[in-house]
Amino acid sequence: MKRVLVTGSTGFVGRAVLPLLLERGFDVHAVGRTAPVGHRLTFHVADLLSPAQTSAVLATIRPSHLLHLAWYAEPGVYWTSAKNLEWVSASLNLVRSFAEAGGRRAVIAGTCAEYAWGSARFHETQSPCVPATLYGAAKDGLRRILEAYAATCGLSLAWGRIFYLYGPDERPGRLVSDAIRKLLAGERFPTSEGLQKRDFLHIADAAAAFAALLDSPAEGPVNIGSGQAQSVRRLLEHIAFETGRPDLIGFGERPLSASEPHAIEADVQRLGDEVGFTPRYDLNHGLAETVNWWRTQRRPEE
Amino acid sequence: MKRVLVTGSTGFVGRAVLPLLLERGFDVHAVGRTAPVGHRLTFHVADLLSPAQTSAVLATIRPSHLLHLAWYAEPGVYWTSAKNLEWVSASLNLVRSFAEAGGRRAVIAGTCAEYAWGSARFHETQSPCVPATLYGAAKDGLRRILEAYAATCGLSLAWGRIFYLYGPDERPGRLVSDAIRKLLAGERFPTSEGLQKRDFLHIADAAAAFAALLDSPAEGPVNIGSGQAQSVRRLLEHIAFETGRPDLIGFGERPLSASEPHAIEADVQRLGDEVGFTPRYDLNHGLAETVNWWRTQRRPEE
Repeated sequence: MKRVLVTGSTGFVGRAVLPLLLERGFDVHAVGRTAPVGHRLTFHVADLLSPAQTSAVLATIRPSHLLHLAWYAEPGVYWTSAKNLEWVSASLNLVRSFAEAGGRRAVIAGTCAEYAWGSARFHETQSPCVPATLYGAAKDGLRRILEAYAATCGLSLAWGRIFYLYGPDERPGRLVSDAIRKLLAGERFPTSEGLQKRDFLHIADAAAAFAALLDSPAEGPVNIGSGQAQSVRRLLEHIAFETGRPDLIGFGERPLSASEPHAIEADVQRLGDEVGFTPRYDLNHGLAETVNWWRTQRRPEE
Repeated sequence: MKRVLVTGSTGFVGRAVLPLLLERGFDVHAVGRTAPVGHRLTFHVADLLSPAQTSAVLATIRPSHLLHLAWYAEPGVYWTSAKNLEWVSASLNLVRSFAEAGGRRAVIAGTCAEYAWGSARFHETQSPCVPATLYGAAKDGLRRILEAYAATCGLSLAWGRIFYLYGPDERPGRLVSDAIRKLLAGERFPTSEGLQKRDFLHIADAAAAFAALLDSPAEGPVNIGSGQAQSVRRLLEHIAFETGRPDLIGFGERPLSASEPHAIEADVQRLGDEVGFTPRYDLNHGLAETVNWWRTQRRPEE
């Protein structure tokens, strides 16, 4: 019996991955402060920032698999917040408690921000990791420590480096969710020239990639991306097309931070060859579906 | 007023550095489970593995400087122990609590085990860090995270990478202390061929280097070494000479682990140029003094 413990189950990736884990035959358990809704799973209330609570939950569940998605992620703040340090400690304790309770296979959410900006396309082992931010450094440092720890105790560990995500039910404060909501509400969306290219992946594809990675024997870092960066301008133009409001996008009305790299694209050969995963959505199709999803929602209270 | 908080004050470096900090005019505070003896300092009992206790002590003392030497260091075990993860978490919490309590300058003990074995001489920024052990990975990962954290909050942070230490009052289970005690007791000391070269620094020099580093503006990693690796054979031959028992050293009677690199030598240009430190002891002088120190001790109970 495969029993997986999921952290961050109420987050963007977590909500999308739960049904996929059930489809794959996992006995799904989730841990956190708030239970996810609408899934056949067992929820355990615990504060992951409390080592004692975390260890107690692991010793009770004794999962064979761990999918660790939880992190501090408040938009605009998480890049430099000292809370990144707390999540390093919480993650070290979580993975150790998992291994000591008999766990065999762990997959942890990493980030493209672990890489040194400067190249355009990032390969898991050939591209250097020199993060430009505290968030990136925390994930990078954690990965280095956990890979060495896994080697000492025979734990199989993979690290899914997330690039840029979009899709239905994304939280406010993110590029795609904010652009769609503003345009559907008839409000202006000031933005940069949008010439920077980013690797966007639909949330359903990202969740499917994590589920496949968890079920695979691949170890070490694996990029979770589309492999095809698109300019932010092209992405916003498609949102403008789908919403019918190209007049509301103010390209060039905001400066692009000097620290923003020109291009960020995932090399996805490992994801394809070793995990056997290819995305289902192309960007146009995914954005159309996302705009339609927002149309069906009431306007969120602000 | 410079007020320094020292962790690991009862350890090998800690015991030697306390009088040097007092000489430099620091108001010296130490924190840990056991008080150091014989120094004019203020001791605070706290378990550094407890975030709450650590934060409370920092908020009370409000030191301007931090010298963080404490770590799990049980000989033979510390290379692979999961306790390295606890000390990463403890160190993250310690440095954050220090900065949030107004601390300005932190120096933390790193290790030459952060480097990728393979070269013979290691430079702080030019030599790659790819640790071969969990201990090395824990220190390396911690440093990467803390350097990024320091950049977000204006903390001045230096990282003293310790190479090989020896000297009076070293704990059992280490090469030099074990060899001297065995030979003085008339017991055989089986060892490898001893052709591997290591960078040995007298504990008084290591402590003086840390005190100078704390008082300097240098930031980032700084090697704490002699700059001159010597073969282990040559070191043991000198101990044999000083104890008068060359007959007791069994070179080649133990295998050298295949994972032991051929040579480990510190590039000490930063330590000399930016910290202004040069060692006082050469190896022969230091070993002679160390053997004499052990002669004055009773034979330890074993």
